[in-house]
Amino acid sequence: MAKYKLTYFDLPGFGEPIRWLLSILGDEFEDRRLSREEWPSIKPTTPFGKVPTLEFEGQVVAQSTAICRYLGRKAMLAGDDDLEALQIDMVVDVIHDIRQALSGARYETNEEVKVKKLEELNKETLPFYFEKLDERVEKNNGYLANGKLSWGDVFFVALMGRIKEAVGYDLTEKHQNLKRLNDTVLSLPQIKKWNESHNKSV
Amino acid sequence: MAKYKLTYFDLPGFGEPIRWLLSILGDEFEDRRLSREEWPSIKPTTPFGKVPTLEFEGQVVAQSTAICRYLGRKAMLAGDDDLEALQIDMVVDVIHDIRQALSGARYETNEEVKVKKLEELNKETLPFYFEKLDERVEKNNGYLANGKLSWGDVFFVALMGRIKEAVGYDLTEKHQNLKRLNDTVLSLPQIKKWNESHNKSV
Repeated sequence: MAKYKLTYFDLPGFGEPIRWLLSILGDEFEDRRLSREEWPSIKPTTPFGKVPTLEFEGQVVAQSTAICRYLGRKAMLAGDDDLEALQIDMVVDVIHDIRQALSGARYETNEEVKVKKLEELNKETLPFYFEKLDERVEKNNGYLANGKLSWGDVFFVALMGRIKEAVGYDLTEKHQNLKRLNDTVLSLPQIKKWNESHNKSV
Repeated sequence: MAKYKLTYFDLPGFGEPIRWLLSILGDEFEDRRLSREEWPSIKPTTPFGKVPTLEFEGQVVAQSTAICRYLGRKAMLAGDDDLEALQIDMVVDVIHDIRQALSGARYETNEEVKVKKLEELNKETLPFYFEKLDERVEKNNGYLANGKLSWGDVFFVALMGRIKEAVGYDLTEKHQNLKRLNDTVLSLPQIKKWNESHNKSV
């Protein structure tokens, strides 16, 4: 029996960073992908009405970021001490700020407000954050924190595809250090192998 | 010189859980509170254009959740192992989901959509999450995770004031276990002392 069972939809989304970290860990895992039809019957069985969930050692946990941090620790990719862990956590929280700004603009229902929000997003918010992150990668030997690979890098690159899709262009193109980080993570043997067998388009 | 310097606005907000955790830690800290006038000149000096920031050991870090997790570790309130840390992180991520649902409804600009979103929030989303959290506290000896106090409890109670203000009623009133948790955290000697000298209204 697989050590871990991931339950998510049949798409990358918030399941993908978990799949990548599980691939890096190398433990066998079940990648359960729910159909739209299955979801209503599964939803009430989850800890907080959402997927992804991860089942292991007789328990079911939720929340993709918390799960990724845990798997990052197991894979020795969560920093060598509390300060390094903090640096990773800070950058991951910034990724969530970026996501939230994105959602705020994309799901705005007032067309006039939406146009304004999207303009602010594309002209100010996203360039600001990506420049800040790019500087960090430049100073950190090609990684987001601590001069070495962490689960934060895996998390960032796994969600970049989603962000790219949302904004309609590749934000790393203008930021050479982030582009390099993207390539570094996608070239990790376990992630490369995972993508080759699961994500033909990456 | 104080070991830590917290920079935030002169309000509870995202600074308060940090202030509470610093009070628990017991290290002397500077509680710098920016005026509206100061903020524009401080903003560009922060790591990601936002406060709170925490300065210590020659570095400046941002992101309140990452900072609270770090201080929680220092205060031995971050779980005894990776699994316990995961349980705390999961609940903290749920608190962010609640916050996000709240913001999504409150800052909706279309009045018609806003009414609908607020109704869904008050009738479905908030009761759902608070019931789930209440169940956890019941099963965990009066705390959100692992049967003992963690930085997640401090974080939750510190932000509850904000949530209460936002929704206009006290969500813990209907949930006896959460109410008990609220009282437990507010009765911690260091937090009690902090509130007595800083937050007359708590």
